[in-house]
Amino acid sequence: MTTRMVEIVRREEFSAAHRLESPHLDEAQNRALYGPCFTDHGHNYGLEVAVRGPVDERTGMVMNLADLMRLVRTKIIDAVDHRHLNRDVDFLEGVIPTAENVAIAIWDRLEAELQAFPQCQLHRIRLYESASNFVDYFGRAPSTPNR
Amino acid sequence: MTTRMVEIVRREEFSAAHRLESPHLDEAQNRALYGPCFTDHGHNYGLEVAVRGPVDERTGMVMNLADLMRLVRTKIIDAVDHRHLNRDVDFLEGVIPTAENVAIAIWDRLEAELQAFPQCQLHRIRLYESASNFVDYFGRAPSTPNR
Amino acid sequence: MTTRMVEIVRREEFSAAHRLESPHLDEAQNRALYGPCFTDHGHNYGLEVAVRGPVDERTGMVMNLADLMRLVRTKIIDAVDHRHLNRDVDFLEGVIPTAENVAIAIWDRLEAELQAFPQCQLHRIRLYESASNFVDYFGRAPSTPNR
Amino acid sequence: MTTRMVEIVRREEFSAAHRLESPHLDEAQNRALYGPCFTDHGHNYGLEVAVRGPVDERTGMVMNLADLMRLVRTKIIDAVDHRHLNRDVDFLEGVIPTAENVAIAIWDRLEAELQAFPQCQLHRIRLYESASNFVDYFGRAPSTPNR
Amino acid sequence: MTTRMVEIVRREEFSAAHRLESPHLDEAQNRALYGPCFTDHGHNYGLEVAVRGPVDERTGMVMNLADLMRLVRTKIIDAVDHRHLNRDVDFLEGVIPTAENVAIAIWDRLEAELQAFPQCQLHRIRLYESASNFVDYFGRAPSTPNR
Amino acid sequence: MTTRMVEIVRREEFSAAHRLESPHLDEAQNRALYGPCFTDHGHNYGLEVAVRGPVDERTGMVMNLADLMRLVRTKIIDAVDHRHLNRDVDFLEGVIPTAENVAIAIWDRLEAELQAFPQCQLHRIRLYESASNFVDYFGRAPSTPNR
Repeated sequence: MTTRMVEIVRREEFSAAHRLESPHLDEAQNRALYGPCFTDHGHNYGLEVAVRGPVDERTGMVMNLADLMRLVRTKIIDAVDHRHLNRDVDFLEGVIPTAENVAIAIWDRLEAELQAFPQCQLHRIRLYESASNFVDYFGRAPSTPNR
Repeated sequence: MTTRMVEIVRREEFSAAHRLESPHLDEAQNRALYGPCFTDHGHNYGLEVAVRGPVDERTGMVMNLADLMRLVRTKIIDAVDHRHLNRDVDFLEGVIPTAENVAIAIWDRLEAELQAFPQCQLHRIRLYESASNFVDYFGRAPSTPNR
Repeated sequence: MTTRMVEIVRREEFSAAHRLESPHLDEAQNRALYGPCFTDHGHNYGLEVAVRGPVDERTGMVMNLADLMRLVRTKIIDAVDHRHLNRDVDFLEGVIPTAENVAIAIWDRLEAELQAFPQCQLHRIRLYESASNFVDYFGRAPSTPNR
Repeated sequence: MTTRMVEIVRREEFSAAHRLESPHLDEAQNRALYGPCFTDHGHNYGLEVAVRGPVDERTGMVMNLADLMRLVRTKIIDAVDHRHLNRDVDFLEGVIPTAENVAIAIWDRLEAELQAFPQCQLHRIRLYESASNFVDYFGRAPSTPNR
Repeated sequence: MTTRMVEIVRREEFSAAHRLESPHLDEAQNRALYGPCFTDHGHNYGLEVAVRGPVDERTGMVMNLADLMRLVRTKIIDAVDHRHLNRDVDFLEGVIPTAENVAIAIWDRLEAELQAFPQCQLHRIRLYESASNFVDYFGRAPSTPNR
Repeated sequence: MTTRMVEIVRREEFSAAHRLESPHLDEAQNRALYGPCFTDHGHNYGLEVAVRGPVDERTGMVMNLADLMRLVRTKIIDAVDHRHLNRDVDFLEGVIPTAENVAIAIWDRLEAELQAFPQCQLHRIRLYESASNFVDYFGRAPSTPNR
């Protein structure tokens, strides 16, 4: 029998402040580039973590959702919820907290933790800044998949 | 023929940072009271403005939704979107920016503007901090309605 | 034991085209008043019908939700779904199809049908044109409730 | 200065199984009345608890949202989440678990707990069985408010 | 002219009870593994069925959405809605009803039915247990696509 | 250091009327094929535009979201919002406005505009007719990706 590969997704939310400012640019350039995002503001971020793996025949699960939830909460949500992303979060130090960069930083942090679940692999980080703006990150793909 | 009273509601969103700190409390008390909200964080706020009035037979409208939208955007959204509510907003100066207080401040500001539409009255301000937390304010009611 | 009054709400959706044009105005006035709504466009309308009544101790229900659903579907949804509200709907003939007027027309039509359920009364019609624009109609109230 | 009355709302979700069966009816009558709901099924219920009170000038809050959240979670969610409402929940014993009855039972349980917050009163329990079906309960009102 | 490949997606919902219990484990192990899910509970499941195929130039459609809707409703929804997934559903007999396994079982059942539409292929089954937990299944892929 | 590829997504909405009628079919065939969609109706369409590219280290962005938003609004939303898709939209002339065809037409129009941002490529157009019906288009893929 073929093993079936499934992706399981856990969604969490966190409320954080941030502002966009690049150390490579002066104030006028920052203002021109980031517009209103140069000012402190905030979001209810939506974070979706997708993990891909074979369905274990004994349990019917790719990975225990309780484990995935605990991982996402203790490693990510506890660090970013009710925080200012530009100064309160260790794993974002030195990072311009655009949605792109925050998604990548979350990927890097969770990928390391998921080593403990060798049958699975991190598949996608989706980060919503709002219902209108979000990003998808699929890791360092050797090739460029069509989607 | 009876005139029909209808409430029209316009919803807008804004992204803002805030923190909760009372000038009547010292730091330890503030921390105990507000917990994680004592730290800078932020939300995608959802603002619903409800206006009540008779339906104009000639137009089929209580109030032109375009006028209501313009009012809400120019008087409220432009002032709070991509801002820090504790320091960037004139009409919140000296206000602890809880959802309750922000809703009341928005009511007061819009009620004044709605004088220009004498057939209507402001009916309700609903302010969402998130899908899980929101408040309703109905103005200074002389009596306490059941709901 | 006191009887408990509860409101039950059924939500349905329908997809319809409409445009706003008043017979009391000429074309220039219509254009000025309704702006882009003077042109044919459409919505996925959300309709919430709230019925209020005592909870029947034998059934635990105010009204059988299956009855309410059938009523709303056969009397309203079947008439407006995948239709042009300005010309295809009997009970909207001669009505400028603003959200206000459509909500009132739906109220009038359902109120008549609800005579068959004498223990209940129609309580509210909420009509969403979109997540950003909606109206509430509570019928011809003898007095003006605060909310 | 007038005290401002505001309603604060906390939304929580729980996943539960239930079926509808009245002890006052025989099986054929139950089947006829409840249709598919006579069979075990389940929902992601959405619970909104609204509390009304004056805004405390010192804190800017009607009631500490952390207290309200803890109350709703410990007194309601912990008892109903991942349970079968017909047999696993003490405060629903002997209750036909329609949305109407579950909302009333939650009201009764929370109203007692809110005695500890004398400046506030429970204002509304809204219970969603799904996005299409929900109920509102406002307590034993002496009079029948229009809405 | 190149033929354009498009994926069309139909979303349906169903309300079902389930519990997680593995026949390969004893009760203590089941309890440890599945936690609260070992108890009867339920969900409003969201099911998205994606079908991929070329757009027919004569009709502008990949597949008639009415056909896809009828297929999903008659083959899946009618079998699982208002049911207990552990005992009432033929095509889930012997299956631990995790989201992963239910998604796979739905895939297998729909893939067979879609043989009647040879120009199309089933592309993805997404199954939501809630807004926070969902899975994606893409069938038995010969290779492992990046996403 | 590896360059990180990320997809950024901008969501917009528009309200439009349409009807489905194929010039290749007679009226009876059209009615049989499209059913209720043969009549004028409308939707609040949801449009998601996904753009893929490397994250610029200086800015932390794939593409300035303000640029993407402006592009989508000026090239697409302004042309289709509050319009009848069968007759008011230049770039849909001669197109049967199914979700499939509208998504493809939007792709073609935006792909041309995105030439101005050579580091990025259009990745996906998702078009929602409603929460229940939507399509994904990924462009003229040389190969058929699994997903």
